[in-house]
Amino acid sequence: MPVVTVLQGPRDIEPKRELVRRITDAFVESYGLPPETVQVWITEVPADSWGVAGTLVVDDK
Amino acid sequence: MPVVTVLQGPRDIEPKRELVRRITDAFVESYGLPPETVQVWITEVPADSWGVAGTLVVDDK
Amino acid sequence: MPVVTVLQGPRDIEPKRELVRRITDAFVESYGLPPETVQVWITEVPADSWGVAGTLVVDDK
Amino acid sequence: MPVVTVLQGPRDIEPKRELVRRITDAFVESYGLPPETVQVWITEVPADSWGVAGTLVVDDK
Amino acid sequence: MPVVTVLQGPRDIEPKRELVRRITDAFVESYGLPPETVQVWITEVPADSWGVAGTLVVDDK
Amino acid sequence: MPVVTVLQGPRDIEPKRELVRRITDAFVESYGLPPETVQVWITEVPADSWGVAGTLVVDDK
Repeated sequence: MPVVTVLQGPRDIEPKRELVRRITDAFVESYGLPPETVQVWITEVPADSWGVAGTLVVDDK
Repeated sequence: MPVVTVLQGPRDIEPKRELVRRITDAFVESYGLPPETVQVWITEVPADSWGVAGTLVVDDK
Repeated sequence: MPVVTVLQGPRDIEPKRELVRRITDAFVESYGLPPETVQVWITEVPADSWGVAGTLVVDDK
Repeated sequence: MPVVTVLQGPRDIEPKRELVRRITDAFVESYGLPPETVQVWITEVPADSWGVAGTLVVDDK
Repeated sequence: MPVVTVLQGPRDIEPKRELVRRITDAFVESYGLPPETVQVWITEVPADSWGVAGTLVVDDK
Repeated sequence: MPVVTVLQGPRDIEPKRELVRRITDAFVESYGLPPETVQVWITEVPADSWGVAGTLVVDDK
């Protein structure tokens, strides 16, 4: 019963819908698991709350 | 000093108040820890950002 | 379908067995959820890999 | 730059190799991201440290 | 390529800007890593969704 | 009472000792928090269990 968490910036619902479907398929094909055992949780973090190379993403634009 | 995180859908404050109390009690009774060493963090994820069996919860209603 | 993660130091199986039972009960009583919807994952971190107040726990004993 | 974490039981390397490839493809196809921006971290939790419905997986076999 | 997550209450952008810079420096100085390999993700949890010693922070003020 | 988690590959204790000290200092200086309120948890993931750009790190060496 794998639990997947995704840390990412905010996105529209359609790409998230497709991502959840494709990640679940990845477990079905790689591990042979039934899809109903796979949970995917997306945590959307705004650009003022995450950073790379010491800089907030909001300051990088 | 255990740290507990809970991934869940949004809920009213009263059930969350009770959940934090009961989870802390679980550590006091199971591990013999003083309650002040236990932290519980609840991350509420909207229905358009988590899914089971390849489908977003918002599409499942 | 809440997912609970616990960050803690290593423990014997019996206290973990009781902790998982009691945390699940906490959701049944606080949220009225059926127990089979609750997952509890315990990540055991050795004393040389976590710290409080700037000091590794292994250095604090 | 999404970060994916997977909580699961222990597995052999080959299925994990395929899972990481397929999850990365899921982001390329769903979000149009370049693959090098996607990180996948698998945390393998032994059967005596996670449970469902109040029971440790090791007790469920 | 370390990934750092921070669970905390809500804060203004300026202290978060400084925190991300200083945490990245910590990896450069402690591990000798180039800063661009370090990601820092801050998850801000409201006071009605986290607690210590069995009490929600919002109830503790 | 921030909780910091670090996902990384395995490292010797000395660099981890310094990292925990420096990350705690980052909170003292950025947020003005007392050091004893800061927890840092390092999860070390082996090279066969995490990947970037669709490839396990162990396959990338």
